[in-house]
Amino acid sequence: MFKKILIIGCGLIGSSILRDSFNKKISKKIFVYEKSKKHISKIKKINSKIIILNRLDQRMSDIDFVILSTPMSEYEKIIPYFNKFLSKKSIITDVGSTKQNVLKLKNKKLNKSLDWILSHPISGSEVSGPENGSKNLFLNKWCIIISDKNKNKMKKVVRFWNKLGSKVIFMDPIEHDKIFSITSHLPHLIAYNLIKTAQDFQKKNRKNIIQFSAGGLRDFSRTAASNEIMWRDIFFNNKKNMISTIDMFIKNLKVFKKNINNLNDRDLRRILVNSKKVRKQIIHLKQDISKPDFGRKEV
Amino acid sequence: MFKKILIIGCGLIGSSILRDSFNKKISKKIFVYEKSKKHISKIKKINSKIIILNRLDQRMSDIDFVILSTPMSEYEKIIPYFNKFLSKKSIITDVGSTKQNVLKLKNKKLNKSLDWILSHPISGSEVSGPENGSKNLFLNKWCIIISDKNKNKMKKVVRFWNKLGSKVIFMDPIEHDKIFSITSHLPHLIAYNLIKTAQDFQKKNRKNIIQFSAGGLRDFSRTAASNEIMWRDIFFNNKKNMISTIDMFIKNLKVFKKNINNLNDRDLRRILVNSKKVRKQIIHLKQDISKPDFGRKEV
Repeated sequence: MFKKILIIGCGLIGSSILRDSFNKKISKKIFVYEKSKKHISKIKKINSKIIILNRLDQRMSDIDFVILSTPMSEYEKIIPYFNKFLSKKSIITDVGSTKQNVLKLKNKKLNKSLDWILSHPISGSEVSGPENGSKNLFLNKWCIIISDKNKNKMKKVVRFWNKLGSKVIFMDPIEHDKIFSITSHLPHLIAYNLIKTAQDFQKKNRKNIIQFSAGGLRDFSRTAASNEIMWRDIFFNNKKNMISTIDMFIKNLKVFKKNINNLNDRDLRRILVNSKKVRKQIIHLKQDISKPDFGRKEV
Repeated sequence: MFKKILIIGCGLIGSSILRDSFNKKISKKIFVYEKSKKHISKIKKINSKIIILNRLDQRMSDIDFVILSTPMSEYEKIIPYFNKFLSKKSIITDVGSTKQNVLKLKNKKLNKSLDWILSHPISGSEVSGPENGSKNLFLNKWCIIISDKNKNKMKKVVRFWNKLGSKVIFMDPIEHDKIFSITSHLPHLIAYNLIKTAQDFQKKNRKNIIQFSAGGLRDFSRTAASNEIMWRDIFFNNKKNMISTIDMFIKNLKVFKKNINNLNDRDLRRILVNSKKVRKQIIHLKQDISKPDFGRKEV
């Protein structure tokens, strides 16, 4: 499919792309650039054919596909190397979780002769680092691609994600950032906030409550264990949408509180019953398994 | 251990007690009283030796152990039958998720000659009904028992839960309701509220967002699929604690929003990093499995 691809940033996502690229024979040669020395020694073990770049330099000139999978806050530092070394035949893509900011950055900083097609694979985990990557990370998952005027190069990026097993869907960046603010970013923020609230409670009441977390708290703690750099970047870059979803959430929470305070059976129960329907939809849409408790084998 | 036990209300929890009571030979005879006819036909299939009671009557007079596992809002209707038919040798326990309300009800309505030891097994699922029960539901789980002056009968209830595999711990009802308001009740309320917010967003934006729920929302939808009668009872009965934890949560959420609005890297990152520590503690305390993504096998 490609002759030479370059993966910049090789954590959970980058190393999963790396693994499946070998598996699917996506490219004749695969180059990796990764800042962390600790990560590099782990990456080398994945496949003996990986070519590690110690710096971004003229060796980039015949790369035909670059996948940028660092935290989004690194993008700006990397673009000058694209401008300096990449050929105009190459295609750039990224895997960032917000897209308006990336598009803006690209328009502002990337040479007009270069092409960057924006992607967002909807997959991840609470664990990070190359040791936790998997060749199946993208299998049957959505990958959002931001529609681009260069249809030819866009098609190649679509084919790339399809090869990795993803179902590709097109969105505009405004729509993308809005949708994922509610289905992904708000749930993470809420999970972090719940753990923070439990910690505050623990301090205030001087009780070890974490040992009793199996009744619900533990599931949130998984989400709240996600990588802090990645999530800071998402919250900051999707600021406007985050603020409006937080406000919606607080508004609903106040209604919930009022229903409890007034023992309003009808209104409270309507909320609880309606929630159940969403779970059914999610399972029907194959977004989660139907086994109780996620099929988790108990500790 | 007992001669005749009676399980009143045989849904997820009741049927799990039923299954493991046969398994561990807890009692020579096991009686079940269950209002739902649909449930009864499922219960009969669990074991041919189950004795189904169609009503609570004089046959209760030589029951030595009663486990009340209906929704808490049913308790008040059942107590008159205890008063009328139970012998003072018998022991009553319940599995309600809040305890101050149950203690109050017991003190107000139960004959002084009868003994009711309050229990709360910390186990459950998003699915309900007798078909979803399991003999291992209580294995290695906490069971909270509210300290009682009748030490003899309390010991028997402890032994019962130990036989079912639970680790028993004693609490006073105020402490109990406070702790579980944060480790169990608030997480459920927050999950319901998140799904409600996603539904509002979907209506307002006329977009089908549920199909993109794999990025986080789906995990909350599991918790928010829990039984609505059970959870209404919990929220109403733990009203005071719920209101104060909701307020704590909103306060923290406003700080979170401010940190995002001001792009306050230091304070935001501190919250995210601290959350991660809680996950480690939870796994260390064997409250969850350490496998990423709950070890869930992907759809």
